[in-house]
Amino acid sequence: MANDVNLVRHSAAHVMAEAVLHLYPGTKFGIGPAIDEGFYYDFLLPAPIANDDLPAIEKEMRRIISGGHAFERREVTKDEARKLFADQPFKLELIDELEDGTISVYEQDGFMDLCRGPHLQNTREIRPDCFKLKTVAGAYWRGDEKRPMLTRIYAYAFASKADLEAYLKMLEEAEKRDNRRLGKELDLFSVHEEAGPGLIYWHPKGGRFRVALENWWREEHYKNGYEILFTPHIGKSWLWETSGHLGFYKGNMYSPMKIDEDDYYIKPMNCPFHIMVYKNNVHSYRDLPLRWAELGTVYRYERSGTLHGLMRVRGFTQDDAHIFCTPDQIEGEIAEVLRFSLYMHKTLGFKDIKAYLATKPKGDGSVGDPERWAQATESLKKAIEKEGLAYEVDEGGGAFYGPKIDLKVRDAIGREWQLTTIQFDFNMSERFEIEYVDADGQRKRPYMVHRALLGSIERFFGVYLEHTAGAFPVWLSPEQVAVIPVGPDFVEYASQVAEELKKRNIRAKAVLSDERMNAKIRDAQGQKIPYMLVVGGKERDEKTVSIRFRDGRQENGVSLDSFIGKVLDRVATKSLEL
Amino acid sequence: MANDVNLVRHSAAHVMAEAVLHLYPGTKFGIGPAIDEGFYYDFLLPAPIANDDLPAIEKEMRRIISGGHAFERREVTKDEARKLFADQPFKLELIDELEDGTISVYEQDGFMDLCRGPHLQNTREIRPDCFKLKTVAGAYWRGDEKRPMLTRIYAYAFASKADLEAYLKMLEEAEKRDNRRLGKELDLFSVHEEAGPGLIYWHPKGGRFRVALENWWREEHYKNGYEILFTPHIGKSWLWETSGHLGFYKGNMYSPMKIDEDDYYIKPMNCPFHIMVYKNNVHSYRDLPLRWAELGTVYRYERSGTLHGLMRVRGFTQDDAHIFCTPDQIEGEIAEVLRFSLYMHKTLGFKDIKAYLATKPKGDGSVGDPERWAQATESLKKAIEKEGLAYEVDEGGGAFYGPKIDLKVRDAIGREWQLTTIQFDFNMSERFEIEYVDADGQRKRPYMVHRALLGSIERFFGVYLEHTAGAFPVWLSPEQVAVIPVGPDFVEYASQVAEELKKRNIRAKAVLSDERMNAKIRDAQGQKIPYMLVVGGKERDEKTVSIRFRDGRQENGVSLDSFIGKVLDRVATKSLEL
Repeated sequence: MANDVNLVRHSAAHVMAEAVLHLYPGTKFGIGPAIDEGFYYDFLLPAPIANDDLPAIEKEMRRIISGGHAFERREVTKDEARKLFADQPFKLELIDELEDGTISVYEQDGFMDLCRGPHLQNTREIRPDCFKLKTVAGAYWRGDEKRPMLTRIYAYAFASKADLEAYLKMLEEAEKRDNRRLGKELDLFSVHEEAGPGLIYWHPKGGRFRVALENWWREEHYKNGYEILFTPHIGKSWLWETSGHLGFYKGNMYSPMKIDEDDYYIKPMNCPFHIMVYKNNVHSYRDLPLRWAELGTVYRYERSGTLHGLMRVRGFTQDDAHIFCTPDQIEGEIAEVLRFSLYMHKTLGFKDIKAYLATKPKGDGSVGDPERWAQATESLKKAIEKEGLAYEVDEGGGAFYGPKIDLKVRDAIGREWQLTTIQFDFNMSERFEIEYVDADGQRKRPYMVHRALLGSIERFFGVYLEHTAGAFPVWLSPEQVAVIPVGPDFVEYASQVAEELKKRNIRAKAVLSDERMNAKIRDAQGQKIPYMLVVGGKERDEKTVSIRFRDGRQENGVSLDSFIGKVLDRVATKSLEL
Repeated sequence: MANDVNLVRHSAAHVMAEAVLHLYPGTKFGIGPAIDEGFYYDFLLPAPIANDDLPAIEKEMRRIISGGHAFERREVTKDEARKLFADQPFKLELIDELEDGTISVYEQDGFMDLCRGPHLQNTREIRPDCFKLKTVAGAYWRGDEKRPMLTRIYAYAFASKADLEAYLKMLEEAEKRDNRRLGKELDLFSVHEEAGPGLIYWHPKGGRFRVALENWWREEHYKNGYEILFTPHIGKSWLWETSGHLGFYKGNMYSPMKIDEDDYYIKPMNCPFHIMVYKNNVHSYRDLPLRWAELGTVYRYERSGTLHGLMRVRGFTQDDAHIFCTPDQIEGEIAEVLRFSLYMHKTLGFKDIKAYLATKPKGDGSVGDPERWAQATESLKKAIEKEGLAYEVDEGGGAFYGPKIDLKVRDAIGREWQLTTIQFDFNMSERFEIEYVDADGQRKRPYMVHRALLGSIERFFGVYLEHTAGAFPVWLSPEQVAVIPVGPDFVEYASQVAEELKKRNIRAKAVLSDERMNAKIRDAQGQKIPYMLVVGGKERDEKTVSIRFRDGRQENGVSLDSFIGKVLDRVATKSLEL
């Protein structure tokens, strides 16, 4: 049976600490927790070390492991602990902060550490090939820049060698798929630090992806009962005072621009604008539900150190919508949003989707009628259960203004990405006092739900790039067909074929440079073009057509018409197949 | 033969001044020029007057006209003139500023005015029914708020009664078509002063128009060899310093936002962003021309007094593009842009289109190689002539950075609106030092051309609303079909029909309220819905379908399939017919 991976990580951390002490006597120890992919440990070393020193530490760890030392637990009083760690100032600090009572310490091979446990029984249970030291980094003691800078050693650790290898392979794969790297290689987008970091410039090929995606998004939204709004990117301070953003969200907003005598803010969210449209007319219960969507570009402050390609940016286009409905409608509306989200994700090829439900925070910080909170949370739960989705509940983890569901999709190399959010808002509806006239003639407060299905177009593009490694389905491929003549005699024919394809609304180009055919095919494959159409033959007037697929397959002697039919079918059905 | 309208306007202004003097002795006279639709005259009156007083002035004017007084010209010296106008301080000021030499004065019916002329021969030549006093307004003497406030009387005046009536009818029609009025009546958009004037909120129905228009725009741009970019709405000061906007355009830009330690400006133009994308790669002459388009939303300062519905706003979406090409390509590219613009305008139903060519400013203020100016101007002229367009040349009227063509379209009630601009830019290309590698391996400066075909989506929407009075062609109509049951027995059938239409991608709605059929038809007509489909019959299971057209026509006993076919055809062909 495999070891519990957390026990392995925890125990290996102790072994690493022991190894470091052997190699660097006099080392003082900070903390050494298990983390998602392994563990780390913080040390105050007598001399600095670098990544080059890690192999020697790994070697010493393996030596200790092979010694077959037991992890022995002891319970001691605080005073005893103070004596045991008398020469470890960081441990003493931790001991002082522990509650009174007994404290557990673990010892292996004469090395003692303060630890809650549990641990493996014996160092031998750590497979010597299931961990790998990763990197040396600096970290302030307790994250406080006024305290000493310690040396942190990160390590990968898994229950088995196979798990470690799979993880390292995934990292290698992730590195190849990095959206910043593919963005350059495929000429999809750029970021220009000098003109402002975190702002995405979509190049022609990125633009083709985006136009195809957004066209589909708009079409599906119309089909699914949404209307599409367009609202300004800036709003006067009145709007943000009323919405409350200048109170609870100011840290994420940019400083105001002055127009005439007024302060204007660039929008971090679209909601106040949709509410202004809502308030423009009186709404009867007969008009509800209203489902109003917008591809609204918003700007939010992110620290420059956290910006990361398409994944974390300062300007992004939410595929946003707001739903205004009566209490009677809320359950149906939420179920419908969830169904629609799943339909969109599945069309895009995501199969493994999980829901995360965040409920009402404890205490008094939240706004809105408790009954509405209960009804809203119930509607979210029912919708998830109706779809038979796996889900986790984060009790009390909701925002102060309403409960929500997040949907995370698993990508081709196993990583989870949050895309969808379905979020109730009891705050904005109160602050703007939005109303509808019910059947009884009374003015009532509608439910208001925010939702973004893809999250943002920029981040989705990043996730999708990494998920597909740039090999988009045909309908989303910026270039669908590269027409390649077998040799210089067929340059004109290749052009004709490309024109013919373009007339049929296929994104085709003829590759007419002086390079050789095979180089052109390689290049087109590298550009992740789904189909390379090789045209020409041995005779000057031979018009043979063969398809080289992006995935390496080949089909010879096809008719142009049947090829066109295939491509158009793949596009029309949003097929994931070539 | 009709009188020269300018002589009529000029002469009528003198008659009005005489009439005012008769009614308000002691009046002092400012100036009284002919203007586009008539004339005005500024007076310092002994007592304030209002619009109510205008009929009496008109009556006195007609009395004077019928007197058959000759307009007599006299040439006098400056000194003589000073004596003649000794009790007219404003005239004396004007006389002092005139060059030395003789001054002409005109006299009719004992009333003398300082005037360059020419005039009609006799007051009788002014037809008593070809003018109409319009309104009383305040105007500072010489437009200077430190000088006295005078009373300005505006008047309409034309060569004939028919012309005046046509003009007044046009005004009345324009009033009905006012985009602000139709925007409310048809629930298309709103502006919210409290959240910022001059910013457009597109409602669901406005959004449907915009999505249909933009989809077509994108499709046509792709077909016509353009690529579509998406760029940020904000850029760091470096970008605007480099582009020069912080120098020559700062007055139209909003004040900066601070992000970290840097100043960011919301964009008033898209060009610097497109240039950043251009500069991201090295371009060979083989890659040119590049035609890069963007529906880019820009923000510019306009004084709040000048804001006007959709016509003059602070935020608008340019249907922008930038063309980068070699000198060899420029003539072809310009011809192509012009052809494309005309194709777009004609598809939208504009038939009467005129070009305005603005050439190099006199003096040293302009940038760029004189040869390039000459080639660019020549290419614009040739393109206009190739299309056989009527055009006017504004010699020296170009911007400092390049020559341009503007296209103006005439709307359904005869007004001209500028939509398209095709503008060379020798400034930006120099400032950002953009280059391509020519066949000889040398790095050279490409030509750069800005162009916007519709101008901005917001303003175009305004123009098109006023041109069509909200009766959009079927493909642009937010709602294409209203399905109306003949009575309550056919509510379900009406719903079925509407669903059937929606499945065929027709924007249909069933009108199922309790109102009577005729009220529903009237309402749908008022909403400018192209087709009202009246369904049902005398028997409970009668499924007769008849069409009421927006223009009042009616077609009974049609088949649903043939109706669907008709609508889909109108949409597919962008037909202007119902």
